[in-house]
Amino acid sequence: MAGARWDIQEFVHRSIGSWRSQRSVHHLAFAHFEAVTSQITVTAVSPQDARVQELCQVHGISSDRVVSPFVMTWEGQSDWDGEISQGESLLVPVPTASYRGKLLRDKGYAETMPAIGEYYLTEDNTFVLVTLYDRAAAEEKIWFINDNVRCRVSLIKTSGGSGVVTASFSSEIKQKS
Amino acid sequence: MAGARWDIQEFVHRSIGSWRSQRSVHHLAFAHFEAVTSQITVTAVSPQDARVQELCQVHGISSDRVVSPFVMTWEGQSDWDGEISQGESLLVPVPTASYRGKLLRDKGYAETMPAIGEYYLTEDNTFVLVTLYDRAAAEEKIWFINDNVRCRVSLIKTSGGSGVVTASFSSEIKQKS
Repeated sequence: MAGARWDIQEFVHRSIGSWRSQRSVHHLAFAHFEAVTSQITVTAVSPQDARVQELCQVHGISSDRVVSPFVMTWEGQSDWDGEISQGESLLVPVPTASYRGKLLRDKGYAETMPAIGEYYLTEDNTFVLVTLYDRAAAEEKIWFINDNVRCRVSLIKTSGGSGVVTASFSSEIKQKS
Repeated sequence: MAGARWDIQEFVHRSIGSWRSQRSVHHLAFAHFEAVTSQITVTAVSPQDARVQELCQVHGISSDRVVSPFVMTWEGQSDWDGEISQGESLLVPVPTASYRGKLLRDKGYAETMPAIGEYYLTEDNTFVLVTLYDRAAAEEKIWFINDNVRCRVSLIKTSGGSGVVTASFSSEIKQKS
């Protein structure tokens, strides 16, 4: 990809907005396919916001180090059980180097506990996030195809990290606002 | 990912074998999901093989420059029409630099004509292939999660390159031989 290398601020900036998401989940052991259609909204939050301050405090991190915190909300429907799931998560990047840092979350995807992940941005502007939970590890890659289309691959592994349990893929299209 | 950076020889070497593939295709305009289960086999071919020599000749490329040619065969079933599709393609890498080169194919995925793609391997050992056809462009990324699991994301774009028509994701698990 041509152009400048992105830092986390640029990546979050391009993510702000409403996205229509098609997500396919591959449950590898059973070769089962699950299809989820959802609406995702990414909204910027002030670093001074009380929720950001509180999350930093929980993790003993100075809120001065926070860059581009945001809230992600989603509402989706799976073809597996037909149930509508919805949720909201606060995500707070804390850079430790130019293209690398920690990502605090008040809730994870794989579990509902607060989580800290390690992120980095590759040379070709792919955002990579690794989060270790008690009994699982999640690895996520997000990259933009153009301003209005992005792809996301998420892997849930056993905590040892060797076995992949589910692999999922989302294609996300930005909605005109 | 820790460890040495891979060249095309290493990448092909790790791909040799039989793979069980789950592939999800997102037809973006219609938000349609298609699920394909297939068996993929990757077999090494000698650079001296007559088919390799012939493909090089077609493209006016010296076969001395060929590294690790291989044949890919697949047989799959889609949940869209239930039909079984199968095929075979000869792929011939021709490096132009350490982590970059051309990939000759006797047949493409998107069209059935011979094609030349441009490949490169990123710092984190992702294989990226861009192929331009008359009316479309295909972009493919393949990376290994571990020795036995790999992921593949393919995008088919309009030839201008701005519009993404389909995005597909495969999770591939190596079968014990």
